[in-house]
Amino acid sequence: MAEPIEFYFDFSSPYGYLASCQIDALAARHGRKVRWRPYLLGVAFKETGQKPLVEQPLRGPYHLHDFARSARRIGVPFRLPGPFPFAAVAPSRAFYWLDERDPALAIRFARRVYERIFGEGRAVADAAATAELAATLGIDAAALTAGIADPVIKEKLRAVTDEAIKRGAFGSPFIFVDGEPFWGHDRLGQVEEWLSRGGW
Amino acid sequence: MAEPIEFYFDFSSPYGYLASCQIDALAARHGRKVRWRPYLLGVAFKETGQKPLVEQPLRGPYHLHDFARSARRIGVPFRLPGPFPFAAVAPSRAFYWLDERDPALAIRFARRVYERIFGEGRAVADAAATAELAATLGIDAAALTAGIADPVIKEKLRAVTDEAIKRGAFGSPFIFVDGEPFWGHDRLGQVEEWLSRGGW
Repeated sequence: MAEPIEFYFDFSSPYGYLASCQIDALAARHGRKVRWRPYLLGVAFKETGQKPLVEQPLRGPYHLHDFARSARRIGVPFRLPGPFPFAAVAPSRAFYWLDERDPALAIRFARRVYERIFGEGRAVADAAATAELAATLGIDAAALTAGIADPVIKEKLRAVTDEAIKRGAFGSPFIFVDGEPFWGHDRLGQVEEWLSRGGW
Repeated sequence: MAEPIEFYFDFSSPYGYLASCQIDALAARHGRKVRWRPYLLGVAFKETGQKPLVEQPLRGPYHLHDFARSARRIGVPFRLPGPFPFAAVAPSRAFYWLDERDPALAIRFARRVYERIFGEGRAVADAAATAELAATLGIDAAALTAGIADPVIKEKLRAVTDEAIKRGAFGSPFIFVDGEPFWGHDRLGQVEEWLSRGGW
C-alpha cells in the first residue's frame, strides 16, 4: 500500500474546508488513504508574518469573492461564519483526542466540524460548541470536553503544528504526496496529476 | 469579437513569466486576444503589506521549489536571475513606449524580456540592459532609452499600476476575464474553464 496523502489544514480555513470535500475521493482514485492533520495556522503565520487573508487590503476582498466562487465550482455550500476568522484550538484538540480512540470517527468529526463552520456558517471555536457538535455523532460530550483540556492532547496538537511548520507548511490546505509539498486548494489538480504521473 | 483577456504581471515575477508562456495560446483557443499589462507589483505590496515571496520564511523555500517544478510541468526553461528580486521599472516603461508605437512588437519585447530573465537567468533591471535587449529585436536603443526617461511614459506606467490596484490586483499574474479576477499562474486552468463555461 502506498503512503497516505498528508492533509494539513486549519478548521478556520475556507480553502481547507473546500479541500476536505474533495481530498478523500481524489486519494481513493489513486489507491491512497488520507492522513487528516488539523494544525494551528496562526502559529505558522507567526513564522511567515502573514495575517488572516480577510484582514488584508486587496487580498481580503479577492478571497472573499473567491471562497464562494471556488465552492460553486465544486458544488458545495459555502457560508462565511461569524465570527471569522477564529482560533480553532478546541475542535483541533478534539480531533486528536478522537483520533487516539477511533481514527475513522475522528475524520467523520472533522467533516462535521467543517460542514458546521462553512456549510452552515457557524463558528466552532470553543469547547462547548465542539462538544455539542460531537454529541450529534454520538460522542460523549463530557469525555470529549475533558479530552480537550487534557495536557497530553494539548501537547499533541502543539507537536503536530510544530512538525508541520518544520516540514515547511505555512497555509491551509497544505498537502504532502510522498514528501512533495503542495499549498492551496487550487493545487488539488496538480496533486492528482502528481499521483497519476508519479511526479514530473 | 469578445473582450481581450487582461494580463497584469511584473517582469520580476516568476509566475508572471510562466503565465506569459501560456496565456496567448490559452486565449486563442477561445477566440480571445490578450492585453499585456506590466505593472509594478512593489506598489501593490505597499498596499497589502506583502514582501517578495523569496524573502519570506517558509513561503520562500516552498516557492523556490515550486517555480522550478511549475516550469518543468509546462516544459519551459527556468533559472532564477541574480539579483532577485529586482525592480522592473525600466523594462515596464520600455513596454509602454513600444506599445504606443507598435503593440505587437511590445508583446514580442515582453516575451524576450521574460526569456532573458527567467529562461536565461539574467536580470533586466536598468535602462542599459533593457535597451541592449531591445536592440536584439531591431529596436533603436537610443530612442528606447530616451523613451524610458520620458515623463509621459513614466506617468503611463504609474497610471496602469494605480488602475490595476484600484481594480483589485495584488499579485502576478493577475488576470481579468470579462471583469472576473483570477490571481496566480496556478489559476490558468480555471481561467480556461471560465472561458469554456462562460462562468459558473
